[in-house]
Amino acid sequence: MADQDDVFDVIVIGAGPAGEMAAARVVRGGLTAAVVEERLAGGECAYYACIPSKALLRPVDLAGEVSRMPGLELRGPIDAAAVLARRDETVSHLDDGGQVSWIANLPATFVRGRGRLAGPLQVEVTMPDGGVRALRARHAVVIATGSDPFIPDVPGLREARPWTNREATSVQQVPKRLAVLGGGAVACEMSQALQGLGAHETTMLVRGDRLLTRMEPFTGDLLEKSFRESGIEIRFGRSPARVERPIPGGPVTVHADDGSQVEADELLVGLGRRLSVGDIGLETVGLRTHGPIEVDASMRATGVPDGWLYAVGDVNGRNLLTHMGKYQARICGDVISARAGGLPDDLPALRDIADERGAPQVIFTDPQICVVGRTESAARAEGFAVRAVEYDMGAVTGAYLQADPYIGRAKAVVDEDRRVLLGVTFAGPGVVDLLHGATIAVTSEIPLDRLWHAVPAFPTVSEIWLRLLEEYGL
Amino acid sequence: MADQDDVFDVIVIGAGPAGEMAAARVVRGGLTAAVVEERLAGGECAYYACIPSKALLRPVDLAGEVSRMPGLELRGPIDAAAVLARRDETVSHLDDGGQVSWIANLPATFVRGRGRLAGPLQVEVTMPDGGVRALRARHAVVIATGSDPFIPDVPGLREARPWTNREATSVQQVPKRLAVLGGGAVACEMSQALQGLGAHETTMLVRGDRLLTRMEPFTGDLLEKSFRESGIEIRFGRSPARVERPIPGGPVTVHADDGSQVEADELLVGLGRRLSVGDIGLETVGLRTHGPIEVDASMRATGVPDGWLYAVGDVNGRNLLTHMGKYQARICGDVISARAGGLPDDLPALRDIADERGAPQVIFTDPQICVVGRTESAARAEGFAVRAVEYDMGAVTGAYLQADPYIGRAKAVVDEDRRVLLGVTFAGPGVVDLLHGATIAVTSEIPLDRLWHAVPAFPTVSEIWLRLLEEYGL
Repeated sequence: MADQDDVFDVIVIGAGPAGEMAAARVVRGGLTAAVVEERLAGGECAYYACIPSKALLRPVDLAGEVSRMPGLELRGPIDAAAVLARRDETVSHLDDGGQVSWIANLPATFVRGRGRLAGPLQVEVTMPDGGVRALRARHAVVIATGSDPFIPDVPGLREARPWTNREATSVQQVPKRLAVLGGGAVACEMSQALQGLGAHETTMLVRGDRLLTRMEPFTGDLLEKSFRESGIEIRFGRSPARVERPIPGGPVTVHADDGSQVEADELLVGLGRRLSVGDIGLETVGLRTHGPIEVDASMRATGVPDGWLYAVGDVNGRNLLTHMGKYQARICGDVISARAGGLPDDLPALRDIADERGAPQVIFTDPQICVVGRTESAARAEGFAVRAVEYDMGAVTGAYLQADPYIGRAKAVVDEDRRVLLGVTFAGPGVVDLLHGATIAVTSEIPLDRLWHAVPAFPTVSEIWLRLLEEYGL
Repeated sequence: MADQDDVFDVIVIGAGPAGEMAAARVVRGGLTAAVVEERLAGGECAYYACIPSKALLRPVDLAGEVSRMPGLELRGPIDAAAVLARRDETVSHLDDGGQVSWIANLPATFVRGRGRLAGPLQVEVTMPDGGVRALRARHAVVIATGSDPFIPDVPGLREARPWTNREATSVQQVPKRLAVLGGGAVACEMSQALQGLGAHETTMLVRGDRLLTRMEPFTGDLLEKSFRESGIEIRFGRSPARVERPIPGGPVTVHADDGSQVEADELLVGLGRRLSVGDIGLETVGLRTHGPIEVDASMRATGVPDGWLYAVGDVNGRNLLTHMGKYQARICGDVISARAGGLPDDLPALRDIADERGAPQVIFTDPQICVVGRTESAARAEGFAVRAVEYDMGAVTGAYLQADPYIGRAKAVVDEDRRVLLGVTFAGPGVVDLLHGATIAVTSEIPLDRLWHAVPAFPTVSEIWLRLLEEYGL
């Protein structure tokens, strides 16, 4: 039996953005909470992913904007040292003191250590000193342990100590030659960031025949063109067969499956994520220890008697995106509070609808790629009566005033039965804040005939909305 | 009786953005159209307002962004000559050939000359050679004559040949010393553009005690702070008493009503617009020749027997904004087509709801000011049960990654009875594309509880949406 000190209404395992948010919401709902974290409070996102990658990308992005605006000229290349120094600030120099204080001020109890389930409502924490602390939850345990970079089983790859998002975002010395495995978000963002900050030879090995294969095809095509212009080499249809790095820290050679090879100073692996569910005691409560933790729309794990276990963020496999994890955590925290208080637990705010309908995603490259909802092919595969319209964003007056040239493209996927948007994609420089309007439209399923009355200000890039609706026939 | 050649289904007087759009929509609806324009086809917006002002402002804006991003530095001041050259391109070197071709390709007939009503369905055009051509409309006449800069009756002001938006946007030589009358959109945008392009002494005389008095108070405050930092002097509570310019083209002196004076090389008047309704023959159809032409929600002028007269854009006084004029023109053109074809004329797309509910406006300054719908005070004055929430945009993670420092503020005005947004204001660098999401939300009256499921991507400035909803209590 745990001491009184070790009993909380809710225990959250994992202090990434989702875990922190879940704790904040249950405390706001009047409950007590403990948050258990082995590594840095704040999570991967704050120190090794979203935040530092954007700190590295923004100057590269802005330099691109300047290059497309007559009348402005940069003094020289980007001052990488200044950018890295600012990156260090954005990650609080890898000190999580601020985050720990934030949790304490909720108020909630922060417990440093490795948390594992140890039966219903029980959590066992292995402390940094090796000791074990037993915690007990009165109402709920929330799993928010996130994910780790996925490293495939390629001979020599692990031994070569490749970079993942962690090492790439915390880069201290930009490698002159960079090899990159993968063509998704991390691979694209970090290739562009490091090339922009001084890498001379960046070479991407991509298994498929396009970048960003899960998005509309034109996004990868536009990005490929931009990458090639900035000197990034992309080799499609190549997978790594073996990797050699004879001298630790020395040059690394990737041998591809077609016999070709790439030599580089560093090798970045951007091949997706592996959910952190393997060693958190799921077996002690009858769940499998691989694959996502299945949850219902209230984030409650299915198949657990008495329904005390919840999972938010990457571990439930819905959408491996920080903002979706935080969204799930708001719902989860509010649901737990409602159930603990005997209040209705089925209000609209207490059900996840966005993960299926409208998860937005931004690739912070130049051009930026912003997507929400379904691609055309995904919508067709799901059996919707689809009509898609596209438009050249460079033909929008506001775009032409923004950049010269402005290269971009937009697409809307419409459900013809209900005349609502199923998905929207924008690809172009600086389009990031265009996305939220699309997220509102997709998530709220606003009929096109009502969107027609939402007038974009002239002359802005937002007039792409008007053009898409006109293309549709309004 | 007009010749057969001079009979059209619809005659549009004025080929600005609204007039052009009205013609395009009636032609799309299967009708014939003539468009009459005395000056440049494309209108004030294309040559002397929206377009060139943004061409001048964008480099200034971008230079500001660079100054707030460590690692980047401009080689020197903005190359004004390059900016002016690009501005010339954006206004097609003041040649409207492209616009005239666009109209011809609709297809519609372009008639160069001054159009005036000459009785029901009759339009008289005074041609450039002095001849008069009589046109007759079968179904409708659309007035889209726009507006002119307002010049107040101040002794010596007209004689001093002050600049308006026209001269300021077509500037060939940036004046060293600029005096500005007014504190609204044109005054603010052009003060910043010209100061950014090389004016050393810009002095604004503002009658009230704040810039942008029709918007949320913090917008003017933020802009004032930014202006002062960039060296623009603002004198509040001053009106011009008299103006002296002894030598044409020489220095101009504005004597203010408090006895102070400003000497400058040019004087810009930015004191609003005067509707172009005084000399277009409204009296021949029984309408008054001053003030806006009153229209119903289908853009049909009220008080005209048989309902053949319509008015779109500035002349109807609803919102003097290009995009709202174009919106009205889409409705107007579609309504005319429907009525001419005996089709239903009361579908939702055929009624103006946005002018009252959600006209968006952007002031393209640094910080940008973006507003849609009502301010808090306007909403209160109209009797809504208002609750307003504000948030410091600089505290949003995505903002901090975008600029250092990022100074901005957002506000949402909520109708507590229906829990929908009545108005939203964003003030900050580069926030322009945030606005359309607010326009969608305000125009479509999406309940806050549904907006709660529209998740902003992390880490973007769009997370301000989440912060505002959290402030509200969600």
